[in-house]
Amino acid sequence: MGNTFGHLFRITTFGESHGGGVGVIIDGCPPRLEISAAEIQGELDRRRPGQSKITTPRKEADSCEILSGVFEGKTLGTPIAIMVRNKDTRPQDYDEMAQKYRPSHADATYDAKYGIRNWQGGGRSSARETIGRVAAGAIAKKILRQFANIEIIGYVKRIKDLEGVVDPNTVTLEQVESNIVRCPDAESAERMIELIERIGQEGNSIGGVVECVARNVPKGLGEPVFDKLEADLAKGVMSLPASKGFEIGSGFAGTLLTGIEHNDEFYIDDHGEIRTLTNRSGGIQGGIANGENIVLRAAFKPTATIRKEQKTVTQAGEETTLAAKGRHDPCVLPRAVPMVEAMVALVLCDHLLRHHGQCRVI
Amino acid sequence: MGNTFGHLFRITTFGESHGGGVGVIIDGCPPRLEISAAEIQGELDRRRPGQSKITTPRKEADSCEILSGVFEGKTLGTPIAIMVRNKDTRPQDYDEMAQKYRPSHADATYDAKYGIRNWQGGGRSSARETIGRVAAGAIAKKILRQFANIEIIGYVKRIKDLEGVVDPNTVTLEQVESNIVRCPDAESAERMIELIERIGQEGNSIGGVVECVARNVPKGLGEPVFDKLEADLAKGVMSLPASKGFEIGSGFAGTLLTGIEHNDEFYIDDHGEIRTLTNRSGGIQGGIANGENIVLRAAFKPTATIRKEQKTVTQAGEETTLAAKGRHDPCVLPRAVPMVEAMVALVLCDHLLRHHGQCRVI
Amino acid sequence: MGNTFGHLFRITTFGESHGGGVGVIIDGCPPRLEISAAEIQGELDRRRPGQSKITTPRKEADSCEILSGVFEGKTLGTPIAIMVRNKDTRPQDYDEMAQKYRPSHADATYDAKYGIRNWQGGGRSSARETIGRVAAGAIAKKILRQFANIEIIGYVKRIKDLEGVVDPNTVTLEQVESNIVRCPDAESAERMIELIERIGQEGNSIGGVVECVARNVPKGLGEPVFDKLEADLAKGVMSLPASKGFEIGSGFAGTLLTGIEHNDEFYIDDHGEIRTLTNRSGGIQGGIANGENIVLRAAFKPTATIRKEQKTVTQAGEETTLAAKGRHDPCVLPRAVPMVEAMVALVLCDHLLRHHGQCRVI
Amino acid sequence: MGNTFGHLFRITTFGESHGGGVGVIIDGCPPRLEISAAEIQGELDRRRPGQSKITTPRKEADSCEILSGVFEGKTLGTPIAIMVRNKDTRPQDYDEMAQKYRPSHADATYDAKYGIRNWQGGGRSSARETIGRVAAGAIAKKILRQFANIEIIGYVKRIKDLEGVVDPNTVTLEQVESNIVRCPDAESAERMIELIERIGQEGNSIGGVVECVARNVPKGLGEPVFDKLEADLAKGVMSLPASKGFEIGSGFAGTLLTGIEHNDEFYIDDHGEIRTLTNRSGGIQGGIANGENIVLRAAFKPTATIRKEQKTVTQAGEETTLAAKGRHDPCVLPRAVPMVEAMVALVLCDHLLRHHGQCRVI
Repeated sequence: MGNTFGHLFRITTFGESHGGGVGVIIDGCPPRLEISAAEIQGELDRRRPGQSKITTPRKEADSCEILSGVFEGKTLGTPIAIMVRNKDTRPQDYDEMAQKYRPSHADATYDAKYGIRNWQGGGRSSARETIGRVAAGAIAKKILRQFANIEIIGYVKRIKDLEGVVDPNTVTLEQVESNIVRCPDAESAERMIELIERIGQEGNSIGGVVECVARNVPKGLGEPVFDKLEADLAKGVMSLPASKGFEIGSGFAGTLLTGIEHNDEFYIDDHGEIRTLTNRSGGIQGGIANGENIVLRAAFKPTATIRKEQKTVTQAGEETTLAAKGRHDPCVLPRAVPMVEAMVALVLCDHLLRHHGQCRVI
Repeated sequence: MGNTFGHLFRITTFGESHGGGVGVIIDGCPPRLEISAAEIQGELDRRRPGQSKITTPRKEADSCEILSGVFEGKTLGTPIAIMVRNKDTRPQDYDEMAQKYRPSHADATYDAKYGIRNWQGGGRSSARETIGRVAAGAIAKKILRQFANIEIIGYVKRIKDLEGVVDPNTVTLEQVESNIVRCPDAESAERMIELIERIGQEGNSIGGVVECVARNVPKGLGEPVFDKLEADLAKGVMSLPASKGFEIGSGFAGTLLTGIEHNDEFYIDDHGEIRTLTNRSGGIQGGIANGENIVLRAAFKPTATIRKEQKTVTQAGEETTLAAKGRHDPCVLPRAVPMVEAMVALVLCDHLLRHHGQCRVI
Repeated sequence: MGNTFGHLFRITTFGESHGGGVGVIIDGCPPRLEISAAEIQGELDRRRPGQSKITTPRKEADSCEILSGVFEGKTLGTPIAIMVRNKDTRPQDYDEMAQKYRPSHADATYDAKYGIRNWQGGGRSSARETIGRVAAGAIAKKILRQFANIEIIGYVKRIKDLEGVVDPNTVTLEQVESNIVRCPDAESAERMIELIERIGQEGNSIGGVVECVARNVPKGLGEPVFDKLEADLAKGVMSLPASKGFEIGSGFAGTLLTGIEHNDEFYIDDHGEIRTLTNRSGGIQGGIANGENIVLRAAFKPTATIRKEQKTVTQAGEETTLAAKGRHDPCVLPRAVPMVEAMVALVLCDHLLRHHGQCRVI
Repeated sequence: MGNTFGHLFRITTFGESHGGGVGVIIDGCPPRLEISAAEIQGELDRRRPGQSKITTPRKEADSCEILSGVFEGKTLGTPIAIMVRNKDTRPQDYDEMAQKYRPSHADATYDAKYGIRNWQGGGRSSARETIGRVAAGAIAKKILRQFANIEIIGYVKRIKDLEGVVDPNTVTLEQVESNIVRCPDAESAERMIELIERIGQEGNSIGGVVECVARNVPKGLGEPVFDKLEADLAKGVMSLPASKGFEIGSGFAGTLLTGIEHNDEFYIDDHGEIRTLTNRSGGIQGGIANGENIVLRAAFKPTATIRKEQKTVTQAGEETTLAAKGRHDPCVLPRAVPMVEAMVALVLCDHLLRHHGQCRVI
């Protein structure tokens, strides 16, 4: 269970890191949307390992095939199935994994839950599972852009203690993609890249924070109570591998302010629109978009796979040690950017379809 | 939409802050569980405004009635409906609200979404909506305790910049309830209470952080991918009014560590159980419980209602100012503790039934 | 579980036949719809026992209260909770029921499932549970009428072997309500009433068939594959107590025709609309409305409660006999008419909201 | 939307009749179940066109591939993705279809709903969509057999007016598979085959009734109210292409009996079990299994595709005529048998997991 996300724009992912392949079914995509495998591939390439010197060197082609739901370049309104074949290389590196639980991985908990596990890799807990999310996210982004002019931009805000200076209101995709660490603050980006390289050479890893902004979200989007926008965004982001925290607007720092400092006062802008002078709410009040930019942050822990020796246990219950062999991914953050964007797009697209269903009927 | 939470243990809440009443239907509660209105009332009283000098002085009796699903003191396995009547006092304080949008409240966004609003109060965005959650949470807690020995304890970890020292592994409910701010660190608690009183007298408000621990969660509970325990917990907590952030385990602070510092190494304990030496994972790996304590934190912003004057606009689109009249709640944190506990209990109970089934659990 | 129906227009019912009360929460009702308790009461009165000499003589007032979701006579877009208090009379007739399983009732299966049962009555399997459905159906009907001009009319088509002649394309609510058996064929109605009275005097019971038509359903409403209109209608109708069969369009009789006899040929009508010459499809092709009238039929078995002696067993596993005491309801059909209408309205309303969300977005 | 079925054992199908392929994702399958592509292929072959002289002569290989969720021959508890490639032959027969709406097909309604359609074939309304259902049904059947000894057997009960004599309590799979029409009454089967052949030669088609029995269903399985077993079974069966009616137990014929004739009296059997003397309830009371055999019937209309000339219209709104070219499938009933079995298996498996839980079932 737990492999489906969304209500009206609903995705179901499948596939282990090893085996036939991974992919996604997207149900609820509006008809007559132009979509091509190439567009989806573009997003997948941003997620792909081996795209730069600072990510995992495993070269995964991740070439996607659209199996259904698209005819003559347009969506049919029927389920869109997208598949990426696994290369099914089973490197010797993984041999030890059949016996030893990797610290802070899900090997042990999957065994506890299911009593069986594809020990060739991380299975469903592998970051490879996110291929389906990113593919679906590419379509969600297009819907949002085309029908509501909504724009979603994620970027690396912080690597370990190196924090970039980025204005979510003006940042562009070009700025994000201008360097391999995906931090639009060029100076910070350089230092981040150096740090990741150094940590990687040590066989160690680091984490950080991804910030993501959604612009032009129409006022009124979202639901009250349990399916508040921020609640669904939190669920989406916290379902990504390695995520440890979520913030909307002022987040944890907002708890250091008093009410008079924190409240977003209203004013009427030049177009007669109700706006807020500040945006500590992060674009959402009571679960519903207020028209300001939605700004959120996600914390990602340092990658669990490291080449340094650690204490662990075998499946049989004996204590031992483990050090990952070969090369590893010292920092998931650059690749986490398209993953976060995908989850934000999926949530907003689902709410967009819910909202038009629920309120436009009158 | 958005008023239902959970899959197998599923609650649906109803009711505005003003009108006939508020309440909840709980579907999926196992049969033959002993339950009384008094038990539920106990939790509601912890949530209630006016319970101490540092919360809102509005005295709400919040007396609950069980309408269905319980017979001769035991659950029937059928939906349990619980209702609390509103007193339906419409104080003059609220009159201004019919016209002016309260900053950082949901008045404006509800109007944007629905084109109508019960201007007598916060409607569904009022903290009063959480009555249904807390009532359902009382039952969820009992199921967890009785069938899996799971214990859930929340407490105030921080008020503004005053942080308590609390060990989640040993903290008791008695310690939490030993003071009105619900911070088990007595010394910090005293300073927190002073701060809240002072801020309240100024007509201002403050926020903070609630920490919550779930102990004895069985290994293997949870689902992979989208319904990861931490994702469902994040959604539950971020759906509470005024929440701005969520962390599991090491959270945002964990991003400052390297992999070798952050990973939870495994060992075999005296009972032959696989355990981790540290718990930066917060009791969850890959979405599934590893048997360690689940520890999470939620950030709550300063209460939006303050007596200080703020800029705002009217529904008609004119700029004006607003200052809340009468007394107000300077800090929601003490009352947020049972709300967070309720959401954690609802998530774990749903996963327990998913994992173990609806009827075998008894 | 199983007490929620629908996706975007979603109802959750609660309440046993005995206990505090029964009711429903309606989530997803569009805002700004005028609705009053009196309107809902009108539908409840059609469902009520004791409304005529041919139904059960138990006089249930079934007076409804709207607890939430309506403000100044209009819906808020928030959950509408409606409650009907039980009178909680516990007639001596029911005493035997604590021990003996009533044949073809759900007493034994509820005990098998839950190990507990409110033996004072039928609990959730009582027809009293349908109060919540009919109340919600009243609102669904109003939405359908107001926003899509959809009209739903049910009527008794057959009582035992007495079949009325009714044209679903022209039948009116006035014709249906012109007699107490709700068969618009006046002549047949008279004979049906006589039959029911005679059977009732014998302490026996009879069943029959309700037919229901939905007119003006817009082309394109519905979903393909699992949520086909006819599939959701079948589920809705077959979830009513005492239902044993469901047909759409030609139904079982259609299996006696050949393809050339059964196919609905197309033509262009005077307004340039694509229409079908016949309507054996019952207004639905491939799960999606084709603009013709949706016509369905539901079979209801003879009421299980009879005053004739039958073999049965006790909860303790001993064979015995049982004859219901007092008066009973010899035929549920007249009261089943508003129940069927309610389920049809709920299904169509849910699909209307889904459709506008899914396809209007483009 | 509408491409997902089930709650805890949940399938999502994808794929048009033409395009990359069709398939299914099965979420919620218990772990450690032995499963092979060959087993699934066996069920697919029963569904396949071209398997005998009385079905459509299109030879579809329908060779399935398991893409995920199975490792070393056992299920992992993760989503099982199964794919069947389309041959993507686009016979000239279909050319006319780009312009003309086929009577009693879904061409026109899909166009009305989506404004686009894969005119090369029936798209999602094609019987080819059921490949995913039958593949998933094969796994559901195995779970039911292995963990609860539940046995599901479907067969052709009637072809047009030729009705077989079959005892649902004793019929075997071998009897069903002993002839190409899948009617276990050998004598009737012969006459059915003759009729189908004759009708097929005329370019016409016929329908009929499939009966299906589920044996050894444990008492207590099912849910009350909306998710009654009979309601979910009705939805499942009525979601199959060409189905027009559904009956449980006595069905429509039961409405001709009186209460004393229809009620199933209880007795205690030799093992001390509560049983019923008759089974007009069809194994279900109040939505919950009573331990007797579940018996249901589904009506299938005559196949819509016929070679006889019929009136129709073009997409452009002009009246014309149409006669299908090439050979056609004169009767879907033999192939509908595995489809009905699959839907029954899917419903029971979902309820089994709901009732007993996802992981305890093994």
